[in-house]
Amino acid sequence: MKIKLLTPARWSQHLFVLLTAILLFLPATSFAEPKALVMKPFKQLSQESKECAACHKEKNPSIYAQWGRSKHYGANVGCYECHQASPDDPDAIKHEGFNIAVIVSPKDCSACHSQEVAEFSASHHAKAGQILGSLDNFLAEVVEGALTFHGKSSAAVNGCWQCHGSEVKVLENGDLDPTTWPNTGIGRINPDGSVGACTACHQRHEFSMVQARRPEACGKCHLGPDHPQKEVYEESKHGINFFAHVDKMNMDSAKWVVGEDYDAAPTCATCHMSATRELPVTHDVGNRISWTLRPAISEKIDAKDKASGKETKSWQDRRTDMKNVCQSCHTKSMIDNFYQQFDSLVELYNDKFARPGKAMMEVLQKEKLLTDTEFDEEIEWTWFYLWHHEGRRARHGAAMQAPDYVQWHGMYEVAERFYIEMVPQFMEILEKAEHDGKTDSATRARAVLDEILNRPEHAWFTGNEPENVKKARKEAQDAFKDRYLNDSK
Amino acid sequence: MKIKLLTPARWSQHLFVLLTAILLFLPATSFAEPKALVMKPFKQLSQESKECAACHKEKNPSIYAQWGRSKHYGANVGCYECHQASPDDPDAIKHEGFNIAVIVSPKDCSACHSQEVAEFSASHHAKAGQILGSLDNFLAEVVEGALTFHGKSSAAVNGCWQCHGSEVKVLENGDLDPTTWPNTGIGRINPDGSVGACTACHQRHEFSMVQARRPEACGKCHLGPDHPQKEVYEESKHGINFFAHVDKMNMDSAKWVVGEDYDAAPTCATCHMSATRELPVTHDVGNRISWTLRPAISEKIDAKDKASGKETKSWQDRRTDMKNVCQSCHTKSMIDNFYQQFDSLVELYNDKFARPGKAMMEVLQKEKLLTDTEFDEEIEWTWFYLWHHEGRRARHGAAMQAPDYVQWHGMYEVAERFYIEMVPQFMEILEKAEHDGKTDSATRARAVLDEILNRPEHAWFTGNEPENVKKARKEAQDAFKDRYLNDSK
Amino acid sequence: MKIKLLTPARWSQHLFVLLTAILLFLPATSFAEPKALVMKPFKQLSQESKECAACHKEKNPSIYAQWGRSKHYGANVGCYECHQASPDDPDAIKHEGFNIAVIVSPKDCSACHSQEVAEFSASHHAKAGQILGSLDNFLAEVVEGALTFHGKSSAAVNGCWQCHGSEVKVLENGDLDPTTWPNTGIGRINPDGSVGACTACHQRHEFSMVQARRPEACGKCHLGPDHPQKEVYEESKHGINFFAHVDKMNMDSAKWVVGEDYDAAPTCATCHMSATRELPVTHDVGNRISWTLRPAISEKIDAKDKASGKETKSWQDRRTDMKNVCQSCHTKSMIDNFYQQFDSLVELYNDKFARPGKAMMEVLQKEKLLTDTEFDEEIEWTWFYLWHHEGRRARHGAAMQAPDYVQWHGMYEVAERFYIEMVPQFMEILEKAEHDGKTDSATRARAVLDEILNRPEHAWFTGNEPENVKKARKEAQDAFKDRYLNDSK
Repeated sequence: MKIKLLTPARWSQHLFVLLTAILLFLPATSFAEPKALVMKPFKQLSQESKECAACHKEKNPSIYAQWGRSKHYGANVGCYECHQASPDDPDAIKHEGFNIAVIVSPKDCSACHSQEVAEFSASHHAKAGQILGSLDNFLAEVVEGALTFHGKSSAAVNGCWQCHGSEVKVLENGDLDPTTWPNTGIGRINPDGSVGACTACHQRHEFSMVQARRPEACGKCHLGPDHPQKEVYEESKHGINFFAHVDKMNMDSAKWVVGEDYDAAPTCATCHMSATRELPVTHDVGNRISWTLRPAISEKIDAKDKASGKETKSWQDRRTDMKNVCQSCHTKSMIDNFYQQFDSLVELYNDKFARPGKAMMEVLQKEKLLTDTEFDEEIEWTWFYLWHHEGRRARHGAAMQAPDYVQWHGMYEVAERFYIEMVPQFMEILEKAEHDGKTDSATRARAVLDEILNRPEHAWFTGNEPENVKKARKEAQDAFKDRYLNDSK
Repeated sequence: MKIKLLTPARWSQHLFVLLTAILLFLPATSFAEPKALVMKPFKQLSQESKECAACHKEKNPSIYAQWGRSKHYGANVGCYECHQASPDDPDAIKHEGFNIAVIVSPKDCSACHSQEVAEFSASHHAKAGQILGSLDNFLAEVVEGALTFHGKSSAAVNGCWQCHGSEVKVLENGDLDPTTWPNTGIGRINPDGSVGACTACHQRHEFSMVQARRPEACGKCHLGPDHPQKEVYEESKHGINFFAHVDKMNMDSAKWVVGEDYDAAPTCATCHMSATRELPVTHDVGNRISWTLRPAISEKIDAKDKASGKETKSWQDRRTDMKNVCQSCHTKSMIDNFYQQFDSLVELYNDKFARPGKAMMEVLQKEKLLTDTEFDEEIEWTWFYLWHHEGRRARHGAAMQAPDYVQWHGMYEVAERFYIEMVPQFMEILEKAEHDGKTDSATRARAVLDEILNRPEHAWFTGNEPENVKKARKEAQDAFKDRYLNDSK
Repeated sequence: MKIKLLTPARWSQHLFVLLTAILLFLPATSFAEPKALVMKPFKQLSQESKECAACHKEKNPSIYAQWGRSKHYGANVGCYECHQASPDDPDAIKHEGFNIAVIVSPKDCSACHSQEVAEFSASHHAKAGQILGSLDNFLAEVVEGALTFHGKSSAAVNGCWQCHGSEVKVLENGDLDPTTWPNTGIGRINPDGSVGACTACHQRHEFSMVQARRPEACGKCHLGPDHPQKEVYEESKHGINFFAHVDKMNMDSAKWVVGEDYDAAPTCATCHMSATRELPVTHDVGNRISWTLRPAISEKIDAKDKASGKETKSWQDRRTDMKNVCQSCHTKSMIDNFYQQFDSLVELYNDKFARPGKAMMEVLQKEKLLTDTEFDEEIEWTWFYLWHHEGRRARHGAAMQAPDYVQWHGMYEVAERFYIEMVPQFMEILEKAEHDGKTDSATRARAVLDEILNRPEHAWFTGNEPENVKKARKEAQDAFKDRYLNDSK
């Protein structure tokens, strides 16, 4: 839908009020950080919204009540202000005499919340819908699913798209296509062409700041075996303090600056989005992130943009900003040391397992020892579990200090997946290749594996660990025991 | 135990009060929906309960305090009113001069809460104890366990029975058999012959409505790898709103009608049990459920009853009632579209994986390519994981809109289980059969698998996907990229 | 760092106040249970702490605010009182004219909290750092990791050590070694030689009792696939009541005696640490535990000490104390029966799976059918998953009444791991051994497996279940069905 501004007549009626309001608010508003446009164009709820409400408060009383608690209510922003449509909007419907759109898109919200939408639109979140043309789509459409739900796969509709966003379609009769809606995926592609769904995080119709700031909001998508950020947070000391002290955290305060308005604990929002004494709120969630922990091999978050010559905020600047958040509670030396620990885990994962795993998959593909089809061979699942599930868990655990995710949900499972599944499956493929006469291909692939397994960090597995390494380890253990365990042995 | 009513003398003393109370309450009480019998037979706590309390408030002070906060306290329902027994009750014990039963059964509760017990008794919950004579019993008694705990399996005692319910036995000395009690399984079979344990959901001794209405109450059993309803709820937008706004949800209100008394979020109880403006409270939790998501192949919830000619509420009527709950917050088009999405996921799972998997297991059994014993062969575990764990997770995720459960905990794992474990294990069995000379059996079984894998939805796996299908997919992806990704490529 | 007491001059100034305070508190303080030393040596915050605060309240405002809510603030215990150091402390740094240590160790805390530190030091928690010279170290340093982070493994640094504790090192420049700090592992080995980290549970700088008493505090480490105590608690009726009634639990009361100050639910602290009407608070968390559920084969918690002639509190006395906690809410017969159920599950796991599994691994090692290296062969992972992950889950589930952890996360997975993975892998090793000419070794190993599988509890798997056993089971099932299911069949 499109925000259709009020009729000129009604608009001029309220212009004076609006301008006065703007002028009154100016002194308190930083020019550098405009907030949602404060416009109070109505003395009272619009006649249109009153008509909507008269009926819907009977039909859907909870929506009405939620809205009644919202800031929108206080600002006389009612049903019609958000849901009005232009008759030529693709999803406009004629409803009780009004042109209405069911979907309120970021374009609509931007009428008042322009800065938030602009920030969001520049973020990685806004690209979440690109999955519709990606590998994961193959998983959901072909491997797990079938195009049996009006030409779409129900696995995508109920799964992927609910986080990533659907491409919302309007049926010929004006209804929203049930394969594409309801959908609150953060990268949703709306009928009006805009991208995103503010309601992914700001649940309608109260649009409560408490809700958006709590960790569960992000946990709508950021949880589970492949990106357990919510679980990681809950294990961390940050999460522990949150649950103990949430009542003291001023969660519903408009101004919510860490170190000023609250201090007991950070939520996801605190670190990734909310204001510090020096930093403004941002709706670009990657703004303070230095690594991307998503792909098989992690790289600094600006690497891709830099490589393609695209202007972007450097990872160093992003990290500086994140450290600014940390500093509310932690001293510099602790923060710096933490980042050394975190970086080292990402690099360990990258170097010991991710790059080798990727090289193994690449040589199999190059040597045509795998079919062209993804996920029809066991080693493809093995590798996917390693990086997409377990390797991410380890990295996320280190990023947010949840040791169980680094270890038992993470590196322990990565190691088992690599040594006990991936290497044997790789060798089995080579044996079959040799048996099938593809000796040269097998030899070249075996050379890749041999080079990997001969590295010092893998020597233990092949039984080639040098004696001096074993001895040094033994001595370190004995020395430790001598120092600390004499009385308990 | 049996509720023994008061002595005639004491009863008549209070008859006038009781009748007056009933009459006073009549205008506010709907005849169609009787609540717990409101009887205030005592001016004060009975002498018997006073004696119980005098001692137990010292010995078990927290029970006493919990009861002190309960509605029971306010209604002068004390220890003795619930725990009194007839001397010939199977579990009656003589205790400090009173006939007492430790277990308060639904039969006892029904003295006041007759409607709730009647509804419960007609529900699927009341049949939970039937597992004692089922396959899961074989798992717990034979595969996982052994009959070494006074003739019972500790795996059943500490596991299955704690949710499903034990068949409570009284030892010769009058004590409750430790293999069967403590037990609060919802389908518990009590010494008095009644079925159920109200305390499964209404934890003693406060019997707080807040506790029973919270999602954790249901999470006593409905969680974990095989039926993660609690986790699914927590991921859903319903759960997100619950945790953000529980303080505004009036959780301890006697009247708790969605859209009247609260609106921020539904809990499990809201959708499955509690009142709407049109529907009464029900203790038959299946009353608004249209699919059964429990078995290997989902069917509509009335299918079994219909097939056996049993009168039952149709799935359509149940769905209509559930939609009535949804309507408090959602409009009709959204609800209808949601149900299309949900249905389509169940059907996808059924058609692509569940029916084929079942057919594969059936032909192996029929052709005697499996032993008669369950769970002694790998493919039996594989199939069980597929439907009982992963397939349910996908279905539950779709039912309550938790995309991670549909996808990463669900269909992704279903697909891997099917293609990478079940199909190869099936083929290995056939190879062994051929090797053992059972050529005909193997041929017939192979025909079943071939027919399955030749279906369009499985053609990708065998490399037989038609070129036009691949091409159409490629074109759709390219078109998507052209529409949306030009600037980001 | 070392607590440096105040200068003699300032000390004498406050001696009178201190002595008066001590005398005043004497009547209310049990000599048998000294609490944290109540000393109020300052009329106001020390000059040193004032100087610290003047700067840090700007730099790290949240620390300042957290401390402002703490009891420390009320007792005039400021930054300097805890962070002061002697110039010769290994981790002392010169900071703005003061000798400061970043780490506040149990030794420092013991200046006021001597009893708590003494109890902690005698506990199993204090030994958590011994892992640094153990098998898990091999996992993190060699299998999962590599010594690439300044000679340490990032898997240990970010994983193991964050729960178990690092051996904190000071670099030559006086900084804390980033491989070893930040670290709040409970068995941390501090620069001053003391062991432990009070902040593992008492998060700085508020040191809130609410936080330490909540289950999330313990969930910093006690969660996940290998020791899901937090998840187990959350499923249990104890956890259900906690989340429903936490607001009534007086969580911030200094005196927090179950049955006096609260009664709605126990938290981890209630059962393992906090006071009952008869028992004092303890910081030795094993004090009321009767089984150790950690090792492959569970034994009574005093078994090792007894075997080595070490004086220790017997498991019976520990259980008696735990029962004293239970009694606040439960009657004796329920508690006793519960312990029978719990014990029987541990014994089932021990006898049916753990001892056999261990015997199988031992014979493989003895017969040199495994390499000397751990975790380079699949069966080593299989066995580790069985006891370290799944077997613990089952035992923990039984210990705290979470049936899903006993069954689906526990015994079900134990059984599958044993029959479908461990036994076949064992047999494969024997086949390979025979193929390699190690016939005698294979024969001896096979004898061990045969003996195990011929036991009655495994006979079902080999198809040797006696007919009378099958028949008895069938009859029991039929009898059950006759009793209860006639109308539903």
